[in-house]
Amino acid sequence: MNPDIQALHDRFALQDLLTAYCYAVDRLEDVEGLVSLFTPDADYDLSAIGLLRTKGHEGIRAFFTRVFADMAHHAHYSANFTVQRLDGDAASTRAYVTGMGIARDGNCVTVHVDYYLDCVRTAQGWKIARFYEEPLLPMPGSLGEIHGREENHAA
Amino acid sequence: MNPDIQALHDRFALQDLLTAYCYAVDRLEDVEGLVSLFTPDADYDLSAIGLLRTKGHEGIRAFFTRVFADMAHHAHYSANFTVQRLDGDAASTRAYVTGMGIARDGNCVTVHVDYYLDCVRTAQGWKIARFYEEPLLPMPGSLGEIHGREENHAA
Amino acid sequence: MNPDIQALHDRFALQDLLTAYCYAVDRLEDVEGLVSLFTPDADYDLSAIGLLRTKGHEGIRAFFTRVFADMAHHAHYSANFTVQRLDGDAASTRAYVTGMGIARDGNCVTVHVDYYLDCVRTAQGWKIARFYEEPLLPMPGSLGEIHGREENHAA
Repeated sequence: MNPDIQALHDRFALQDLLTAYCYAVDRLEDVEGLVSLFTPDADYDLSAIGLLRTKGHEGIRAFFTRVFADMAHHAHYSANFTVQRLDGDAASTRAYVTGMGIARDGNCVTVHVDYYLDCVRTAQGWKIARFYEEPLLPMPGSLGEIHGREENHAA
Repeated sequence: MNPDIQALHDRFALQDLLTAYCYAVDRLEDVEGLVSLFTPDADYDLSAIGLLRTKGHEGIRAFFTRVFADMAHHAHYSANFTVQRLDGDAASTRAYVTGMGIARDGNCVTVHVDYYLDCVRTAQGWKIARFYEEPLLPMPGSLGEIHGREENHAA
Repeated sequence: MNPDIQALHDRFALQDLLTAYCYAVDRLEDVEGLVSLFTPDADYDLSAIGLLRTKGHEGIRAFFTRVFADMAHHAHYSANFTVQRLDGDAASTRAYVTGMGIARDGNCVTVHVDYYLDCVRTAQGWKIARFYEEPLLPMPGSLGEIHGREENHAA
């Protein structure tokens, strides 16, 4: 494919990868579909918002198994998506996300965060190799109440 | 046009169709402009959020004529747009929408919903053949208070 | 470049320009980076939301120097981006933005606005020549409390 056209297709594929992550996180039932968006050794880092950092499919699977069990509703809206670097089979993207959740116990949470994803092209398409997010606005206390619990389970 | 380039143009055109829908719904005055985004026999289905399902331009026109009369402000923000299927002159898209409204009587509503649009390419560009939305988060009671009224008018 | 491909690259570049504006406004520290997104004689017009209208880099720099000093947090999410006109080296774009802010004094503001940008292609890429925004939903009183202050400084 013409490289000028390839770059456009890559941009859409990278945005679709972020969207697939949002869809999977919000579906609350297909952990394997969610895990498959990451490389086997992916770095999944929520430490900047006060939650866990884990590496690889097993850790991501364990975290979201608990999250899906605890949450009744999820909605993650992305905005301001950009490709900050596209270099052959590696790319870095950034986007803002508003994440909303209602736990089964009724507790609610809304976060406004800045996602940084490092992605790699594989035989199965683009995958997330590093997932990192930072607060855009101060995190609400309910974030730790809801998801800190999952990490206590994990400990 | 090269099919690789055509697919990219189609994707933008499909996203623009959703955006045109949001713009028209929020403008609150050009019902014909809104109706023209749909095929003549379009299926407009809000049943999954507790509102009407209607078919064709006449039903859509009647619904939005009442909505525009009742609402003072509308704002529909889309996110997470994807083309889930693009097959020649037919396409299926998905997006999240946050819909906010303030009725003339002061009642307010915010919904977080998942839009599924089936679209067809016509001589006048892409049109919506089926419009379906589902809740992402629980619907507020004010949705039925505001828009249930329009359906009572219709009954 | 093939003009069909060029139009696609331009669209992404124009959306990236809006996103760069949001990122810069939210970073709260790099006034020069923000100013560089505008043409030297840009018209920056917030009059429709009850704030200032100014022309050129100096006025924009002065406004944001005060805004960045007063704000503790900013988050501007864009949605519904469209290119309404693309004519060689000139373009008009539209998007919805949700702007959230927390002032250093604790006052909070959220606005839902409609951005209209006229852009021109320069040797340094696309720049904003005219920036205009309108309310989508009624503006909160805290907008003037927070940013009216900056204009009083300026007067």
